[in-house]
Amino acid sequence: METVAFAAKNMHFKIRQARKEDCKEVSRMIMELAVYEKMPDQVKISPEELERDGFCQNPFFECLVAEVPEEHKSKEGFTIVGYTLYFYTYSTWKVRSLYLEDLYVMPEFRGNGIGKGLLSKVAEVGKKKQCVRLQLSVLNWNTPTLDFYAAKGAQDLTVSEGWHFIRFDEQNMGNLANEAPKDQ
Amino acid sequence: METVAFAAKNMHFKIRQARKEDCKEVSRMIMELAVYEKMPDQVKISPEELERDGFCQNPFFECLVAEVPEEHKSKEGFTIVGYTLYFYTYSTWKVRSLYLEDLYVMPEFRGNGIGKGLLSKVAEVGKKKQCVRLQLSVLNWNTPTLDFYAAKGAQDLTVSEGWHFIRFDEQNMGNLANEAPKDQ
Repeated sequence: METVAFAAKNMHFKIRQARKEDCKEVSRMIMELAVYEKMPDQVKISPEELERDGFCQNPFFECLVAEVPEEHKSKEGFTIVGYTLYFYTYSTWKVRSLYLEDLYVMPEFRGNGIGKGLLSKVAEVGKKKQCVRLQLSVLNWNTPTLDFYAAKGAQDLTVSEGWHFIRFDEQNMGNLANEAPKDQ
Repeated sequence: METVAFAAKNMHFKIRQARKEDCKEVSRMIMELAVYEKMPDQVKISPEELERDGFCQNPFFECLVAEVPEEHKSKEGFTIVGYTLYFYTYSTWKVRSLYLEDLYVMPEFRGNGIGKGLLSKVAEVGKKKQCVRLQLSVLNWNTPTLDFYAAKGAQDLTVSEGWHFIRFDEQNMGNLANEAPKDQ
């Protein structure tokens, strides 16, 4: 995908694929998003890990960033003001899917269509890659976000079908692994 | 991973990586699992698609199968009696994760430790690949399965943290994609 630029509500911005040198900015916004989600101490990732995992031969994820021109930079001086990070998953019912891990726009830049721009570019990538659905997870108290996705046609499968999200953390996964039958 | 063989409750079985020629059997069990989950008409995958996507250069998934010897074959004559299908995902909080898409054991072979064997082998793969968590989704009415994972240390994040599972289906993803800003 090439760079995309457009204006909405007087705010010019462009959406482009993240480059290795954007990882510091993406890392900053990952932390801002975690603070908004009230779980900042869960973040253990570094810009170096993002560089290693996203810009290697078979990357673990892809990332788009939203950029504003210098004259619209944030009060702290940032011009990269939003990002989305996604990867490909697989369904044994429907084949290829796209999973949206993060989508974030800095608070002072919201209401300009940047979030919608990022989301629709990801959907476009998914369509090109023959994915048949786009999935993500949202916290139930985060009604602005739930409403944002619902307004664009998403279905809450936890409500409609009863899907629950289950996790083994590192320790419990390790315990399981230790009980694995030994290879012959 | 090499083949693993062990016996539990008088039932010998082995767990091994799926091969291309197992796709027909895996496909059969994908349908059996969907019937159990009361959504058989959601299954659109073919054995050929599994072959294409799981046994290519950068496979979309990995798969293990559980096999019993000829003398223990199922009443229909099957010796491949369970499978698990998983892939790698990415968390911007904790880096690499493993996602368990399916884990299934044919009803007449349950209670022999085959499900536990498959799960612990997947956890072992995750640990080797530096994944820090193992995640999956379960339907809320499926209490035997929820109990199975909880007994092994998994946490229900929909209950404990309120995560909901959101999906854009193919049509809604396509609508979004059509609204994407055009590349310059």
